[in-house]
Amino acid sequence: MNREQIIAQIRAKRSYLCVGLDPDIQKLPPHLLKGDNPILDFNKAIIDATAQYAIAFKLNLAFYETLGAFGMQVFGDTVEYIRQNYPEQLIIADAKRGDIGNTSKMYARAFYENFKVDALTVAPYMGSDSVLPFLEYSDKWVILLALTSNQGAQDFQMLHTGEETCLFEQVLRTALSWEGADHIMFVVGATQSNLMERVRAVAPNAFLLVPGVGAQGGSLEAVAEHAMTSDCGLIVNSSRGIIYAGNDERFASAAAQAASDLARQMEQTLLDKGIID
Amino acid sequence: MNREQIIAQIRAKRSYLCVGLDPDIQKLPPHLLKGDNPILDFNKAIIDATAQYAIAFKLNLAFYETLGAFGMQVFGDTVEYIRQNYPEQLIIADAKRGDIGNTSKMYARAFYENFKVDALTVAPYMGSDSVLPFLEYSDKWVILLALTSNQGAQDFQMLHTGEETCLFEQVLRTALSWEGADHIMFVVGATQSNLMERVRAVAPNAFLLVPGVGAQGGSLEAVAEHAMTSDCGLIVNSSRGIIYAGNDERFASAAAQAASDLARQMEQTLLDKGIID
Repeated sequence: MNREQIIAQIRAKRSYLCVGLDPDIQKLPPHLLKGDNPILDFNKAIIDATAQYAIAFKLNLAFYETLGAFGMQVFGDTVEYIRQNYPEQLIIADAKRGDIGNTSKMYARAFYENFKVDALTVAPYMGSDSVLPFLEYSDKWVILLALTSNQGAQDFQMLHTGEETCLFEQVLRTALSWEGADHIMFVVGATQSNLMERVRAVAPNAFLLVPGVGAQGGSLEAVAEHAMTSDCGLIVNSSRGIIYAGNDERFASAAAQAASDLARQMEQTLLDKGIID
Repeated sequence: MNREQIIAQIRAKRSYLCVGLDPDIQKLPPHLLKGDNPILDFNKAIIDATAQYAIAFKLNLAFYETLGAFGMQVFGDTVEYIRQNYPEQLIIADAKRGDIGNTSKMYARAFYENFKVDALTVAPYMGSDSVLPFLEYSDKWVILLALTSNQGAQDFQMLHTGEETCLFEQVLRTALSWEGADHIMFVVGATQSNLMERVRAVAPNAFLLVPGVGAQGGSLEAVAEHAMTSDCGLIVNSSRGIIYAGNDERFASAAAQAASDLARQMEQTLLDKGIID
């Protein structure tokens, strides 16, 4: 899926919402637990309920790996379900992978070729040759961690690596110099809205995947104000705020309502910036 | 497995070898491909052939994930095989995981509780709260990336974050301040032997997991000279140099020979340092 297709989706749906499918078996609506495959049933119901408000779905691998081989099957089945039923959606595997070149190649094959996701989150610590094998897939996206939404982002990402440069800015700058940089997005947490302008100073056009709205406390309005570009340039994720909006038989309509609420806020920010009318 | 048990193994085996089980179906001995589960058969044969020379086995997840749900089953079965037959071995999942606290908890559960590995490699970029959920398992090991063996290590790990401090040194220093730091090891590539003394200046006692001997070009002697402590403090990994030492019916004995050769070199370095006699 290329940049133009993503932007067309944003304009058509009047939303830049990504729904995070991070299902924790301990938090599922109890009535689902009677079925053979509660997590897949849960995912399908959430997808059906929220797809009209969303342009992307993000699956965090931790929630599937914790169930072992079965969990990876559910992961694959969920991706396939989205692909079949909502082919316009960007499918993101939030795996934060990255290893020496030889090994990153295997991860790239796993996620891009076998599971057929459109985008993969990648950790930058190991540098260029750990990311380049992913960038070789020119029709796929690498979403590189830059400035994350958690407290620990202070520990290393905010270290000064130059007089007026922090590590996260150096990661942005270096990554944008790599071959294939036109299909890199960056993870920038919504909780970091005070730093969004510094991100945009280095990466004025790149799409940002923004987690941290909702449960983690980030503000959508602040993100839009400081980081929206003339073609939006944002994909904002919400996981827990949507998928656990309800916990009974009506969990899917509660999720739809939560997604719709967020999408309506997004529509307003798109209107304010003149991106839609 | 605690530190004393690891050291006891090193003294008993006169080796600090870790065998990397990174099986690529395209590189397996062709005769194995006729079986139902060639990768598991391959792993078992390598494990049986090399266990006497090794104190640890390291499984890189990329090589299993690339096979989807089936691959994760093979991963779990391989871990179980080592656990049952060679309970003295340290089992390392080389997964380079790390995410926000909520999510790292799920990864910790996946690897420490479900797959029951002894140690997990973790990427430091997201800082303290991405690592602490792993450290809560006091009988398990976190092996944090510090200075990796690849060329891309130059991109960020070698950036100056202080007048005489690079990012990798800051990662070591900060991590050693965390609660549970007594069960952190660090990844330091064998190709970085010129920097080993700087690693030891910050982390004089921590065990180092050292990849990069063999196919990646690192020298065992240089690693031992610059980084060995009075109780060894090293676990040196070789993957491709051992598991692909042969490619026909005698692949297992070729692997045993390669492991034995490395172990004999290790024995010499342990003798030289007076750690064994």
